[in-house]
Amino acid sequence: MSDGIDPETRARVALAVRNALADHGYERLTTAKIADEYEKSEAGLYYHFDTKDEMIAAFLEFSTGRLGEALADLDTDDPERRLRAACEHLFLSPGDEAAGVHVGVMELLSHAPHNETLREPLRALEGATLETLTAIVRDGVERGVFRPVDPRATAAFLLAAGDGSTGFHVALQMDVGEDLRTAWSAYVDSLLAE
Amino acid sequence: MSDGIDPETRARVALAVRNALADHGYERLTTAKIADEYEKSEAGLYYHFDTKDEMIAAFLEFSTGRLGEALADLDTDDPERRLRAACEHLFLSPGDEAAGVHVGVMELLSHAPHNETLREPLRALEGATLETLTAIVRDGVERGVFRPVDPRATAAFLLAAGDGSTGFHVALQMDVGEDLRTAWSAYVDSLLAE
Repeated sequence: MSDGIDPETRARVALAVRNALADHGYERLTTAKIADEYEKSEAGLYYHFDTKDEMIAAFLEFSTGRLGEALADLDTDDPERRLRAACEHLFLSPGDEAAGVHVGVMELLSHAPHNETLREPLRALEGATLETLTAIVRDGVERGVFRPVDPRATAAFLLAAGDGSTGFHVALQMDVGEDLRTAWSAYVDSLLAE
Repeated sequence: MSDGIDPETRARVALAVRNALADHGYERLTTAKIADEYEKSEAGLYYHFDTKDEMIAAFLEFSTGRLGEALADLDTDDPERRLRAACEHLFLSPGDEAAGVHVGVMELLSHAPHNETLREPLRALEGATLETLTAIVRDGVERGVFRPVDPRATAAFLLAAGDGSTGFHVALQMDVGEDLRTAWSAYVDSLLAE
């Protein structure tokens, strides 16, 4: 079980899972490949985690709320700037550093209906991102920066579009990068109050 | 190889793959499970296809262009009605008939970076859907039903949002169904000319 592990070990395991998942995907991921990234023996990892899925759950828990933290680093409370910055995190290109991780998380999402170990951490991850986006839109509406749109619906649409870009843009490398940037930029423009 | 198979056999194999993929997902899919759906022996399938992935490729090829065919059945050339109908096909709910297939295709997309057999048929499938949506938006712009938006960017955004709804809405069953409907409806509204 992953309870009671010290934060540094947890962070190192999460990073190891992140790198291994990005390189190999979920199906071909093994604890041995995670251990290669962790630079400790597989037995060392098993001291903390019983299964590959528990290691992945630890990575998902570690990743939850990262969008909010990344936006806090922006050091601005301007809703428009924060929403555009959030979109930069959601809509990746095939060569981006986190591209492989996004594809890996998409694969994990496809296993959620059959995999209880992954389902709740994935819900927490997606829920935190949705909440971060919703808060930005709500703040923008309340301050009159955005039109009186539905904050959660707007946030859900952007999250859906960002997640979905991972398939045909990042994984398939279809030539839609400029199209998607044009579209999400226009969507944010459309939220602005007159 | 799947070349030279008669259309009826091809359709039956595609339907068998569709059902088996929806029930089991890609990783746990076996040719035996496809054969169960096909109601012929596994050996019979191997007469036509060398591998599981070739059977899946045949399913993807069979599915390519289906959105366009479904919209043709609408018997209307009104761009707004056609775009809203397309959105009904793109944004599914967990209980919908095709929900499992959408999750299965999302899993296939996550394998595209590592799997050459699946990559091209997936590109063709996503490309055909993108083209159908683009044609509707372009027609709407040309006829003055829609504002002069960028047809391909608008289409890519809707395709991304529909694909991405498969993860957190369909697979995770998060409570965002109404939010997504509100948002895509408002997005189509926003395309309408004044």
